[in-house]
This record gives sequence, C-alpha cells and structure tokens, in this order.
Amino acid sequence: MVRHSATLAINERLEAKRAAGERVLHLGFGEAGLPVPPAVATVLAEAAGSNGYGPVAGSARARAAVAGYFSRRGLPTEADRVLLAPGSKALLFALLSVLPGDVVLPRPCWVSYAAQAALAGKQVIDVPIPPAAGGVPEPRVLETALAEARAAGAEPGVLILTVPDNPTGTVAGPELIEQVCAVADRHGLVVISDEIYRDLVHEGSVYSPATVLAHRTVVTAGLSKNLALGGYRIGFARLPSGPGATRLRTELIGVASEVWSSLPAPMQEVAAYALDEPAEVREHIERGLRLHRTVAAAVHREFLAAGASARAPQAGFYLYPDLESWRGKGFATGKQLTEHLLNRHGVGVLAGVEFGDDPGALRFRVATSLLYGSSTEQRWAALHSEDPLSCEWIAEALTHLRTALTPREP
Amino acid sequence: MVRHSATLAINERLEAKRAAGERVLHLGFGEAGLPVPPAVATVLAEAAGSNGYGPVAGSARARAAVAGYFSRRGLPTEADRVLLAPGSKALLFALLSVLPGDVVLPRPCWVSYAAQAALAGKQVIDVPIPPAAGGVPEPRVLETALAEARAAGAEPGVLILTVPDNPTGTVAGPELIEQVCAVADRHGLVVISDEIYRDLVHEGSVYSPATVLAHRTVVTAGLSKNLALGGYRIGFARLPSGPGATRLRTELIGVASEVWSSLPAPMQEVAAYALDEPAEVREHIERGLRLHRTVAAAVHREFLAAGASARAPQAGFYLYPDLESWRGKGFATGKQLTEHLLNRHGVGVLAGVEFGDDPGALRFRVATSLLYGSSTEQRWAALHSEDPLSCEWIAEALTHLRTALTPREP
Repeated sequence: MVRHSATLAINERLEAKRAAGERVLHLGFGEAGLPVPPAVATVLAEAAGSNGYGPVAGSARARAAVAGYFSRRGLPTEADRVLLAPGSKALLFALLSVLPGDVVLPRPCWVSYAAQAALAGKQVIDVPIPPAAGGVPEPRVLETALAEARAAGAEPGVLILTVPDNPTGTVAGPELIEQVCAVADRHGLVVISDEIYRDLVHEGSVYSPATVLAHRTVVTAGLSKNLALGGYRIGFARLPSGPGATRLRTELIGVASEVWSSLPAPMQEVAAYALDEPAEVREHIERGLRLHRTVAAAVHREFLAAGASARAPQAGFYLYPDLESWRGKGFATGKQLTEHLLNRHGVGVLAGVEFGDDPGALRFRVATSLLYGSSTEQRWAALHSEDPLSCEWIAEALTHLRTALTPREP
Repeated sequence: MVRHSATLAINERLEAKRAAGERVLHLGFGEAGLPVPPAVATVLAEAAGSNGYGPVAGSARARAAVAGYFSRRGLPTEADRVLLAPGSKALLFALLSVLPGDVVLPRPCWVSYAAQAALAGKQVIDVPIPPAAGGVPEPRVLETALAEARAAGAEPGVLILTVPDNPTGTVAGPELIEQVCAVADRHGLVVISDEIYRDLVHEGSVYSPATVLAHRTVVTAGLSKNLALGGYRIGFARLPSGPGATRLRTELIGVASEVWSSLPAPMQEVAAYALDEPAEVREHIERGLRLHRTVAAAVHREFLAAGASARAPQAGFYLYPDLESWRGKGFATGKQLTEHLLNRHGVGVLAGVEFGDDPGALRFRVATSLLYGSSTEQRWAALHSEDPLSCEWIAEALTHLRTALTPREP
C-alpha cells in the first residue's frame, strides 16, 4: 500500500493544528512560500479561454520555452526532447514506469522516489550519501552496493540523483557528480537527475549529470520551487540525446496520455511565459533566492547553537540537522524526537526515516520556506525586505525555534 | 508498452494535416468543442494567486461542491467521500492501481481503460455490449464470461461501466444497470461507474449504478464534457459508503500524493464555483446539450442515408456507425475503412478496434463536437444559434461528410 506522501501529510497535520488555534512553527513542508508575481497571474488570467486538451507532451510554445531554459543553462536542448506535465512528480512516476530495472537511491532522499518505485513494481537499492553533500550516493559504496544487489537478484537499471538536494539542502559538486556518473556508466544505469532546485543554488551553479552522461541522463525540473508555483503543478523533463531517446519519449507519452493527458492548457501558457524568463521572472527568482539563503542560514545558526551538527545550507530552503547530542534526553529514534517537537512545541519537521534514513538517527529535515509569512502581504514584505530577519514574524519564528531547542528540565 | 492514447493521437494527426493546409473533417476526438463561459474565466483569473499545494484530496470548498453536485443528482454524498484530481483519467488510473483483481470491460469501451489496466498490471476480461446500449456488458454473457475467466486463472475484481457511454453515445437504462449490478454483486466486483457524460443525456437522466450497488460503486466524473473544460483537467470521484471506503480513500490519496500531488490550486477554485452550479453554469451546460443533441442527430441521419446501421444518439456527442454494407467495396477491417476516410476524404474517425471491438468489424466512433467551429467566435455562434445546422461551417461539414460517404466509382 502506498502511503500518503509524508511531506503532504505533515502539511495537513499542521494546518489542522493551526486551524484549532494552536501556535505552530511549520518547518515540515517544501512549499517555496512566496507570492505569485503579478505578470504570471496576468498570463494565467489571459489564458483562461484555453480549454482544449492540446498535445500530450506540451504545446509547441511551452516546449520551446523549456528547451530555451535548459539551453541557457549549458544543456543544449531541442523542443522535441521536452515533455511538460502537471508536476515533475508525474514525470518521475512515468519515467519509473517505463524505464527497465530496479532503482538506486541516495539515502536519505526525497520521500516520493521510493514510493513511486514501489508503485512501478521496482525494488529499491539505497546507498548512503557522502559527507560532502546529499542527493548522490557515496561513489565507492555505490560500486559495492550494485554488486551486492545484483548478487541478491536485483537488476539495477535507474539511478536517481537530486541536484541540488532535498532533504539536505546541499549541492553535489562536479567531482562527485563525475565519480557517480562513471559508476553509473560502467553499470549501464539510466540517470534521472531531479533538478527542481537548480535555480536556487545559494552560490554558483549546478553541474548537471546530463553534462557528463549526456546520452543516458533525463533531467526533471519545474516551476514549483524557483518560482514558488507549487500549486500550479508545472513540471517538465529533458530527455537524453542518445539513440534510445525516441523510444523513451514514445513510452513516456504513452503513460502520460493514459494517466493525465496533458498539463492543463492555461498552465502551458504560464510555462511558456515563465520559462522564456523575462526580467520580472528573473528578478522574482533572484529575490526569492536571497530570502531563502538568508533565512536558511539563520535557522542553521539556531541548530548549531543548540548543539546539532548540520551541513551548511547550499541551495533551496532545507537543512538536515542531527541532534545526536539529545540522545541522552531519552530519544531513541528520530520519530520520537520529531513527535516531541510537534506535540510539545508545535514545531513541525520530518524525521529522517521519512527520507529513508536510519530510523534510530536523530536527524530530520527542516524546511525554512514557510517562515516568510502566513499571508500574501507578509510574504511580499519578506521578499522585498533588505533585512528579512528583522521582519517581526520571522524574528518570532526564530525565537519560537530557539525556545523549542533550548534544553529544559522536564 | 503503453501506446499513445488513440483519441489523443488522431487529434494530433488531424491537427498536423490541418496545419499543412489540408481540408479536414475532425470527427475523431472527444473534446466538447465549446468556449469557456466568461464567469468561469473570471474565477480562474481571480484564483491566480493560489500557489499553495493544498490538500491531496482537494480543497474543502471544492470537495463540498462535488458533494453537492452528486447530492442534487440523487446520490447523497459527504465531502469526505470525494476526491478531486487533474482529470478523472488520473482517478481511474489510481483506482485501478489500488483495487484488487482483474478488470471487466464492456466491449467496445473508451480507449484508456484497457491501457490503464495494463499499466496497473491487470488482465482485462472483455464482454460484448447488448444491442440496447453500450457502456455495460450484456448481463447474461457477463455471467458466463466471469466463470470462464476464473477457470482460466483470472481473478475478476473490478467492473467498469460507462454511463452514458463513449463510444456509442447511448445510455444504459435502469433495467440493464440493475441486471449488470446484480451479477457484479454476486461476484463481489467493485463497480467503477464513469459518468463523465452524465449531464449530457439528450432526454431524461442517468440511472447510476451507485443507486443500486451503493456500498461498492465508485463514480467518476469531471468538467471536461458537460462544461467543455477538457484543457482545465478537472476530475473528481465519489467513493462508496461501505466499510471498505475509508481504506480505499487512504489508498487513493496515497497514489495521488505520489503521482500528481493535487489538482492545481486555481483549478480547485474553478471546480468549487462550477460545481455549485450557479445559473450561468447551468445555462451554459443546457445550451451545450441542445447543440450536442441537434448536431449528433444530423450526423446520425447522414450515416443512415449512407447505408450505415447506427444506434440513435442518446447522450453526449458520439455515434458508433457500422458500415458493414461497404464490405463489398474491398474493406476487410475497420482500420482500412477509417484510413480510407482519413487519407481520401480528410475525415478523421476512430476504428472500433481502438475501443477493443472486433478488428474486422466496419464500425467506428464518430465524435460530432468539433463541428461547432474552429474559432471561439464560431463556437459561441453555434451555441447561441436557434438553428445550428444552418451555421455555414456546420452545414459545410455535413456536406463534406455526405460527399465522403457517397459511393463513387474508383
């Protein structure tokens, strides 16, 4: 049985608490927490008359815009190697449905990969991430894990990488990517590179596996994170250039046409507009990035002050602290710790086990993006503030967190 | 391998011909062919700021509206028995993914059921429709087919009915529904009743299997046909009332949360508005229904005049003629006939084999809804015309069809 996605579940649980009048600190959900730029809203409004189904892969304009988006990022792309869908999640599901073989995942990784693999009838082979960054398996362990998995009867066929990473908020660098891709190449794995956070790197840019393993890497991305349009459900994929790409495209379109038909037509117009990246869109993303960086760094400082170990945030709006120092307080599992934070302090975070991590580890994912405000007004103010940490609601949230993390006698 | 949905494929093929300057008569695609009511467009425009993911099952307002929609149609429904999704197709896929057992289908039936069953790893047991109406299997044959399927190792678990039906444009009446449900009950089948055309019955109303087999019928529907919002991708499901319903809901939400997350937030606002059925929406649907009825009847007359046998259209905008009388002209299969119509006359229809019918039968599905016009202006004019058959483009289309159906020496 496929469980309700953990990230969506914590969101609904916290909303219920808030609706019941409880004071909550929502660090559990990867929603980008920013308002819709007026120009994007206008495009959607003007596209309201678009009620035809349209091509399964996406309208010609939207696909051309996706191709331009990737081409400007060092990944030359033709429009016929592009698919749009209602969310990159749907494309990831379709990819796992049609690509042969079992799935290799970094551990921890985003909650839905393993669930989708199960839905597609695949085994999961998980490999721990290296200390440097998440989203990729430790290359040396990967080699061994593949051999062991084969010996145990699995048939590894697909490797999912997350660059930049959720849950750790880190970015695997070129060296790591090249090492991992070399192993994937030797073992004939198709790489799915989930680059939904690629525009939100705090410093520098993403080195895509598609640069290294061009003929066998599918890149997925969308507008949910960079442009904070999660509720619009706009995702897209860039297929590889190799000889198998035409067949893969045909098969993906097959699944798409039987499961969701197409990205809603008005959303195709939004995609075409936003992915052409006019100035207003670029500025909005740039402002959002600054806010993510500032707040994630501030929350990181709170965790360090509380004795946690945690990689410094490098992208997006996530941290993955380890409160091993709290084990002496009676916490045996990450889940016990996160339930304590939720029930005692109204602080919602997701235990590492939700991401496939060791249940006994006192690690959890912290999403910092819902601190920007609970109203559109607060979010605009945070986005335009020179010093977002001085926004009253953000300062209060940091205090709330500090209190929750401050040791007290029972 | 899952093929590109046949209905979407013919659409793209005809669009390509049209773009190449060929004169085409598009009778191949089940798009309702009507413009967006201004009030609906306004709701979408005003919802452009809704960029949060929202609950997987749908917003509280949208679910309440769906509950009201069904309750006003003689199917009392609580909001917690409702799910919304990007299209009822997605919900049908999720249902087939979680419901145990193989799938019983009427033959012919809508193109996607069998493809979805294959994707969900299920066998298909197909049973011919009775002469009276499509969308349901002939009850006496059903009983035998189930016994034979079991003997052959299948485990029938789900029966899909289409009421009103696509491809035949007919509506199974109460007696037929009750007979089929009695067999389903004896065999412990869950019934999925696809009622996406339920508001488009030409005379009278739909007798839902959910009335008969309340504890084990799931109803799916959407706004793609009644309100012609196919490109908006708004679908919904009403779960049964029985003890298994809570588990079914949890499992469906599990699949939904891992495959598509939620119906796009702005579309939830559209659903909430439209399914509350204000006067403008009711009038739009009523006008559309009159247009569907008038044009389908006119096209039916053309086919009868050409020597086809065909059930009289009772709902929606479909016909399912049989040109058996043309076999003497050298057509051995339905596909040969439809390729002839497409290549020689630019007339696009779908052969019965696409719907699971006998490949040798000279039957095909005719969708009449794209005759209303190729521009928004023509569609509004057709919708408001007292005599749509006198609209120049509709009259020309009927002449085009008559020419294609008129026997000529080679």
